[in-house]
Amino acid sequence: MVTNTEKLDAAVLEVFKNASTPSIATLLYKRGLRTNFVQGVSRLGGDRPNMVGQAFTLRYIPAREDLNQLEVFKDPEHPQRVAVETVPEGHVLVMDCRGDASAASAGGILAKRLEYRGCAGIVTDGGLRDTHEISKLRLPAYCAAASAPTNLTKHHAIDLNVPIGCGTAPVFPGDLVVGDADGVIIVPLHMASEIAAEIQDMEAFEAFVLDEVAKGSSIIGLYPPSAETRARFEACSKK
Amino acid sequence: MVTNTEKLDAAVLEVFKNASTPSIATLLYKRGLRTNFVQGVSRLGGDRPNMVGQAFTLRYIPAREDLNQLEVFKDPEHPQRVAVETVPEGHVLVMDCRGDASAASAGGILAKRLEYRGCAGIVTDGGLRDTHEISKLRLPAYCAAASAPTNLTKHHAIDLNVPIGCGTAPVFPGDLVVGDADGVIIVPLHMASEIAAEIQDMEAFEAFVLDEVAKGSSIIGLYPPSAETRARFEACSKK
Amino acid sequence: MVTNTEKLDAAVLEVFKNASTPSIATLLYKRGLRTNFVQGVSRLGGDRPNMVGQAFTLRYIPAREDLNQLEVFKDPEHPQRVAVETVPEGHVLVMDCRGDASAASAGGILAKRLEYRGCAGIVTDGGLRDTHEISKLRLPAYCAAASAPTNLTKHHAIDLNVPIGCGTAPVFPGDLVVGDADGVIIVPLHMASEIAAEIQDMEAFEAFVLDEVAKGSSIIGLYPPSAETRARFEACSKK
Amino acid sequence: MVTNTEKLDAAVLEVFKNASTPSIATLLYKRGLRTNFVQGVSRLGGDRPNMVGQAFTLRYIPAREDLNQLEVFKDPEHPQRVAVETVPEGHVLVMDCRGDASAASAGGILAKRLEYRGCAGIVTDGGLRDTHEISKLRLPAYCAAASAPTNLTKHHAIDLNVPIGCGTAPVFPGDLVVGDADGVIIVPLHMASEIAAEIQDMEAFEAFVLDEVAKGSSIIGLYPPSAETRARFEACSKK
Amino acid sequence: MVTNTEKLDAAVLEVFKNASTPSIATLLYKRGLRTNFVQGVSRLGGDRPNMVGQAFTLRYIPAREDLNQLEVFKDPEHPQRVAVETVPEGHVLVMDCRGDASAASAGGILAKRLEYRGCAGIVTDGGLRDTHEISKLRLPAYCAAASAPTNLTKHHAIDLNVPIGCGTAPVFPGDLVVGDADGVIIVPLHMASEIAAEIQDMEAFEAFVLDEVAKGSSIIGLYPPSAETRARFEACSKK
Amino acid sequence: MVTNTEKLDAAVLEVFKNASTPSIATLLYKRGLRTNFVQGVSRLGGDRPNMVGQAFTLRYIPAREDLNQLEVFKDPEHPQRVAVETVPEGHVLVMDCRGDASAASAGGILAKRLEYRGCAGIVTDGGLRDTHEISKLRLPAYCAAASAPTNLTKHHAIDLNVPIGCGTAPVFPGDLVVGDADGVIIVPLHMASEIAAEIQDMEAFEAFVLDEVAKGSSIIGLYPPSAETRARFEACSKK
Repeated sequence: MVTNTEKLDAAVLEVFKNASTPSIATLLYKRGLRTNFVQGVSRLGGDRPNMVGQAFTLRYIPAREDLNQLEVFKDPEHPQRVAVETVPEGHVLVMDCRGDASAASAGGILAKRLEYRGCAGIVTDGGLRDTHEISKLRLPAYCAAASAPTNLTKHHAIDLNVPIGCGTAPVFPGDLVVGDADGVIIVPLHMASEIAAEIQDMEAFEAFVLDEVAKGSSIIGLYPPSAETRARFEACSKK
Repeated sequence: MVTNTEKLDAAVLEVFKNASTPSIATLLYKRGLRTNFVQGVSRLGGDRPNMVGQAFTLRYIPAREDLNQLEVFKDPEHPQRVAVETVPEGHVLVMDCRGDASAASAGGILAKRLEYRGCAGIVTDGGLRDTHEISKLRLPAYCAAASAPTNLTKHHAIDLNVPIGCGTAPVFPGDLVVGDADGVIIVPLHMASEIAAEIQDMEAFEAFVLDEVAKGSSIIGLYPPSAETRARFEACSKK
Repeated sequence: MVTNTEKLDAAVLEVFKNASTPSIATLLYKRGLRTNFVQGVSRLGGDRPNMVGQAFTLRYIPAREDLNQLEVFKDPEHPQRVAVETVPEGHVLVMDCRGDASAASAGGILAKRLEYRGCAGIVTDGGLRDTHEISKLRLPAYCAAASAPTNLTKHHAIDLNVPIGCGTAPVFPGDLVVGDADGVIIVPLHMASEIAAEIQDMEAFEAFVLDEVAKGSSIIGLYPPSAETRARFEACSKK
Repeated sequence: MVTNTEKLDAAVLEVFKNASTPSIATLLYKRGLRTNFVQGVSRLGGDRPNMVGQAFTLRYIPAREDLNQLEVFKDPEHPQRVAVETVPEGHVLVMDCRGDASAASAGGILAKRLEYRGCAGIVTDGGLRDTHEISKLRLPAYCAAASAPTNLTKHHAIDLNVPIGCGTAPVFPGDLVVGDADGVIIVPLHMASEIAAEIQDMEAFEAFVLDEVAKGSSIIGLYPPSAETRARFEACSKK
Repeated sequence: MVTNTEKLDAAVLEVFKNASTPSIATLLYKRGLRTNFVQGVSRLGGDRPNMVGQAFTLRYIPAREDLNQLEVFKDPEHPQRVAVETVPEGHVLVMDCRGDASAASAGGILAKRLEYRGCAGIVTDGGLRDTHEISKLRLPAYCAAASAPTNLTKHHAIDLNVPIGCGTAPVFPGDLVVGDADGVIIVPLHMASEIAAEIQDMEAFEAFVLDEVAKGSSIIGLYPPSAETRARFEACSKK
Repeated sequence: MVTNTEKLDAAVLEVFKNASTPSIATLLYKRGLRTNFVQGVSRLGGDRPNMVGQAFTLRYIPAREDLNQLEVFKDPEHPQRVAVETVPEGHVLVMDCRGDASAASAGGILAKRLEYRGCAGIVTDGGLRDTHEISKLRLPAYCAAASAPTNLTKHHAIDLNVPIGCGTAPVFPGDLVVGDADGVIIVPLHMASEIAAEIQDMEAFEAFVLDEVAKGSSIIGLYPPSAETRARFEACSKK
């Protein structure tokens, strides 16, 4: 279990509260990263603020029937339960279910406990259960499907805070996890600050573009901007 | 066609109106049943009471073009139409489309007729059409996707009330079918009463747990409960 | 690039504003067409009027990394950008992403520009990004998934207004595209007028049927109608 | 269980021993049938004569753990075992596993027994086990994959000789089943004689075409034939 | 990295050289284990002796482009290369590629080195490259597909000898891995000896059954055996 | 239809006759190309020389029933037939079937004609029929599956020699196509010469490595080579 991951500055995290996953995806693309979007998950419940936090991971392997009786949860060392009690405040619990959503990886009680503990969100490429209850929490939650069966049915919790895959994205403990209406994206820890620095300008420019489009401007020469457009944007943003 | 399936007591059915599919899944798991959740279907429309009723089944095989012209519906013995007119009041119509949602298995008119006749719900691992209209009915309806093409395009109705598969779950006529926001689960007929007996305590305990979690309790020793927690719950529930 | 596709009469288009995709699917089925429903896409945002317009197509092939750097968008001839600026008013932009929704095929800025230009809707069997923003536009938009990565990640825009596949449906430039809550269906251009002529009666009859069902009528002899039912419907509709 | 299916003439069956599944597919296509090829199965073992026989069907539903203990095979009425002992000589045993090949639907011992009883072949859209042994039998066998787990793991044998789906093809008891290196195709019983009448000429013509192609002829005007080519073929075949 | 897994007796391993994966699957099924068959992999090359050995595992996560340049192989600690040099003699290298066969997990050079080092086989739910060369080795090799791209394209080697999933089967370091023509099955370490004890009788009985079937015996009362059959078998096997 | 694609030097083509697709994949990876391997296709028939030639493409869209009657083949301008008669000698016919192998894209007669005309091979991400006959030709043929149904069932031939996708790889007319036992890879035209220049050394080095491994060398320091190893290889190759 990785223990000493670097903590990101609160200011950096704050920037991502107003950054969209498409903008982040484009800045990762610029750096050659094409696979960091978590494929196939969607958010429970309606509109809410961005999910932003560093990753704390839980790895599942396929369940083996003799190892996954209901009694296992009585073990205080069961990794799923330990995860719920140890994910650091402000972190996102990211679970690797190998893309199998035919069983849950967590449910309403654990989600409520995570919310209480200040967890920043949960992401799983497996299922979640009690989705109606979870969707009413403030805690952002992303999963591949609602799925009533207990995790024991398919998933054996095995490791905490190791590098995992989630929805075909690589996730390292401490990576920045951002979620919005489009889904969840993973920003490698060492890229988070420089992307934060770039993204504010990018979001401002996109707002400017939307404004121009609303006024009837063609996108040619606007998005991406010609030198003239860029100058005009910069003039605007100085005001 | 199976005709004499045992009818469940109204009291048993009543219990399941307040039982969640995750709790049922766990009690089935305890009995060794891992595959009774209907995979891949979701509910049309928003929040509503649980769907609860015994299964009445309709089996489709793949359509063969020469047998599935629009005229077939003129036959008063067409199994889909017979199903709609004969599903007993309070039963759920469960359809086996072999997981193929590229065509509908029923639409708005049939759904409305089923509602009128007192049907408790419809479940299909194929498509439904007129989903906007169906979502406004009181009748709960679960499908794999909205799909405009008539069932004849892909599905040939062949059998009524035989054992089927639906969303990879085995379904026998008369089995108890329960649906909530997480999806649909099949309770084998002979297990329904004993699970009803167990589930009320389980739901009460989970409500107690949620309450404790809201107050800040750790889940370790709470869920599953230590002897002390269990005692405390029992003391509470006596009040 | 096909340039001279026949324009449909406004009156024909108008009819389809009140036609459902299931009814259209049935009339296509009657003519032997089983594959014109766009499989696997759903509408962003809530209830809204039907999407109706002729198809203007954009074809993507899989991206090749050396050809898809962010700079390509600076080319005023980039087919995606040209598509956005040239889709004729009242047409639907239909995109062929080979069913790969792991990247977007368009986003919020382009969607807003399309709305401004009077585009009748967008349909893609790939992803869309900025789905929250798009769902707030009046422009109807259908996609296989929300997906944050830029189209360059997976999709190379190659052709405008050639015949394509979208969601396993064949789409020819100029075909009529209709979308409602169930999804999107493609009406071959040369069939649009005759289907328009037939569908009004069909929708009226289905409304009559729903009414009868609401009053408690069995569907046997009603849907499809016996001679007596048909006569009764005709008597009603004359009033 | 259907019991009185019409038996095809030996002469008709004989014709199909020299007919290819592509030719049959084309003649079915001519009659509007597009879905009778069994998708996703392949033949065990190397080159061998065509499999030809009428269908005897076995339907599986998903296994339910409490109903599928190893003891069930002790029941002499277990449908899988009854199937093996009652499939009529010269018939093909066709199994519906809902396309799930993660467990076997039969193994080496049953295959050997079927061969001994004069069964014409086995086809399953599930798995087969002991594939090395089966591939050494004369009995043609087609499956979706080699799969070691016993059928009980996933498949509950439920019905004999009812209409089924196999590899997305509709199969009615008594339908003609033909298999070659390309796979398996289902000929509806009532079409078998007329297709037999047509296919001999078709195969003769294709042999003629191959001969012409070997001599350097273009396919334009040859395949399909111009009037001149057709005349030349007819002249040849009279010799 | 797990280091002290128990070594199985040579005598136990020897038994499995003559045991089939279907027989093992059945004995695991008897113990409640339904998921230990490695789904979706097949053997390269033709008939050969069973693969038998304990599991040594290699875990991959999805590749991240900045971490997977060709230079990484220069690192003598790269887990894939360390795996190849440290898998103990007689062990099977089992790789977890999350079922993604769009890139290789190993190729001809590593396979040849593994053969030289006395490795008992390789199993991956990803791809293998140089399959023609590997199929000519004595080393048994199982994969999901031939796949030319280097592992770096999709797979980032991360861990050695931790519990993994492979083809949806759970695999713990030290588990017994057996492969034959049907595929690969995982026997939990603690069950290996008792299954070895049972399987010899089972294989002998199946040989007896095949013999009886060859003589024309019905399977009813034979397989599974009636008391009479069992007695007869026991009499035979004493000779 | 693209007509003037550059022809590659015979010497360049010759080099690729002795190059493996894994080596090519690695050299493309070095240049940032990760998606040029044609996923999901395999070669018909046994061992044979590499397939090497420039791409001539045929694009299919989904079939529409009214446009795809058997008579269409009588049209001498039908794109599939034109493709067969116009693919230049030494070129590979690459077909885009959108990954749908449920129908054929070509069969034995067309394959034989292609062989006669000096075509270098066929590649399709759809099906092929008459696979037994095709596997006996010298013409290399790669497909996603054997599939008896005529192409008209699912595929409508629409375009010749335009950029396409095949098995998720981008293919431009004139690109170099190489196939071996592992599958098929696409080399962008402008990279073919420089990769040819690099690959001979690479193949020689891999042969040297295999030789060292056969003698018992560890792969550490060998593959990739340390400076010492590289020097030793260069000394060897000078001899």
